[in-house]
Amino acid sequence: MPTNEYPAKGYAATSPDSGMAPLAFTRRGLRDDDVLIDISHCGICHSDLHAARNDWGRTTYPIVPGHEITGVVAALGEKVTRHAIGDRVAIGCMVDSCLECDSCKAGLEQYCQRGMTGTYNGKDRRDGSTTFGGYSDKIVCREEFVIKVPDAMAMADAAPLLCAGITSYSPLRHWKVGPGSRVAVAGLGGLGHMGVKFAAAMGAEVTVLSRSEDKRADALALGAKDLLLTTDKAAMKARTGYFDIVLDTIPVRHDLAPYVHLLKIDGALVIVGMIDMMPEIHTGLLLMGRRIITGSGIGGVTETQEMLDFCAEKGIRPEIETIRMDEVNTAYDRMEASDVKYRFVIDMATL
Amino acid sequence: MPTNEYPAKGYAATSPDSGMAPLAFTRRGLRDDDVLIDISHCGICHSDLHAARNDWGRTTYPIVPGHEITGVVAALGEKVTRHAIGDRVAIGCMVDSCLECDSCKAGLEQYCQRGMTGTYNGKDRRDGSTTFGGYSDKIVCREEFVIKVPDAMAMADAAPLLCAGITSYSPLRHWKVGPGSRVAVAGLGGLGHMGVKFAAAMGAEVTVLSRSEDKRADALALGAKDLLLTTDKAAMKARTGYFDIVLDTIPVRHDLAPYVHLLKIDGALVIVGMIDMMPEIHTGLLLMGRRIITGSGIGGVTETQEMLDFCAEKGIRPEIETIRMDEVNTAYDRMEASDVKYRFVIDMATL
Repeated sequence: MPTNEYPAKGYAATSPDSGMAPLAFTRRGLRDDDVLIDISHCGICHSDLHAARNDWGRTTYPIVPGHEITGVVAALGEKVTRHAIGDRVAIGCMVDSCLECDSCKAGLEQYCQRGMTGTYNGKDRRDGSTTFGGYSDKIVCREEFVIKVPDAMAMADAAPLLCAGITSYSPLRHWKVGPGSRVAVAGLGGLGHMGVKFAAAMGAEVTVLSRSEDKRADALALGAKDLLLTTDKAAMKARTGYFDIVLDTIPVRHDLAPYVHLLKIDGALVIVGMIDMMPEIHTGLLLMGRRIITGSGIGGVTETQEMLDFCAEKGIRPEIETIRMDEVNTAYDRMEASDVKYRFVIDMATL
Repeated sequence: MPTNEYPAKGYAATSPDSGMAPLAFTRRGLRDDDVLIDISHCGICHSDLHAARNDWGRTTYPIVPGHEITGVVAALGEKVTRHAIGDRVAIGCMVDSCLECDSCKAGLEQYCQRGMTGTYNGKDRRDGSTTFGGYSDKIVCREEFVIKVPDAMAMADAAPLLCAGITSYSPLRHWKVGPGSRVAVAGLGGLGHMGVKFAAAMGAEVTVLSRSEDKRADALALGAKDLLLTTDKAAMKARTGYFDIVLDTIPVRHDLAPYVHLLKIDGALVIVGMIDMMPEIHTGLLLMGRRIITGSGIGGVTETQEMLDFCAEKGIRPEIETIRMDEVNTAYDRMEASDVKYRFVIDMATL
């Protein structure tokens, strides 16, 4: 049975054009399988901005965004077995799923056949309330969806891994990237810069696809072997049929044809950024060489843990800029202007 | 060195609106690695019609179509080792490729990195002449691209397997269809009806996707377990996430979204018919469940042989209607009206 609720504070949007402002609310009392987490940091994802502004038409206000959450366990439900008070933990894009369907049983809770519960703007499976995310001092979450932060990892660094990290890691694993693989990463933002780091750490030859030569030094510093200018037709043509994987992290609608051309036989373009209508593309590009267009959405709980552990083992950390909670509106503006290298992380001690 | 040329006769189009009419021409004299084949039968593929009418803008006239060819070896180049006079043989969509690139070495000559040579309207790799296809009494072909027709198989039955057969067989093998697989086949024409037979013979549960209930009896007779009416929204919804593979043989531009919805996690829609701009589709369909859109083009030489042998072993034969050579124009009209079950085959003895 729920115990007493917890008073919480956070930052919320109250309408599409309200911007983010302080909000007092409550977190539910602990169910038997819940943990209470004192939030330490929360990354800022592009989705947060879209949701806050209701760009996808599905936002319930007020909305407290944030699904790249790290913190410390502060209290336990009566039957919690996975976590202990004081544990360094994290929550990503999901706080619940049915855990019974084939997808959940396969460790793919993000594709739960009954629909996973989003960390914010989701609908709690038991009481139907709207979920509030990580721009907040605390959160209550079902223990199965709480992930352990490795000791070696700073809480601020861990936060962006929960969405930007796993979203780029999972497809690289799924498509068996390793030594000998040639991976192209399109879009060098929160997801893309992690894609470069992961693919390089997995042993692949990594190329950043960019419209701008300006990013070359950064691309190489992140672990890429090369930057391929997508505006250079001759250079693009020279790489026809070259790559096993194009990890497409570009978050806006764009033509896929130039990227599909780069794929070798059985190569795959994996969309992880664009959530939109895909522009028309000629099927001949797919028929000639069995090329693949596919997508990938975050990752399951177990794989997210694996990814954090992989980062700890390999010393991989995201490039972050830590900000105060009251700087979130500015951060949104800067994110829209691509003025961030490469992820904002809110220090929740500033709330 | 080439020996004397062979006088040949065939049916050709001489302009986009000429229709098909008799043409006298010559086949090249035998190179060392060539075989001369007396053509017994030739299937009629939808591509023949498109090429004859220059629908794709790449036709050189006169054009002698036909790439579903069966016949008997009548003469051998000096260094031919794979075939003997009197052998029952077949030629599909290719008569040559570089045989040196990675694709060719992998048995994927159809994806030759230097471009395979089409059986008709192709450019001979050695003398640059335009290739003429199987609507003809004889053909000369490099021995590596000549396939053996199993003894148990009628020459008329074998012909459509060389394009319609291998085009539907190859992706089913590539995507590892077998017992336990759920395969949907969209489009019940030359390719689709073979797709049903193959997938059923491989042990899969097969469903035909059709706009018309009229095809149910045929679908079941071909080996399908069910027909799913694509116009029945409730029935389509009930099959969301159900299929491992959708083999999409529909030869005209169409929306893929209703079919992609049917795929389970990691399921693949394989385009083998539509050579056109793919209409816009929402990427969310791919991100949610890593669904795949891909294509496949015919198959390599070795796999084509494997497919013929599989047909002989399993007793699989296409449904054909044998016609006279001078009925080809009528056959084209009927094919356009979908009035064929399921493949026309020209009896070349009537030429």
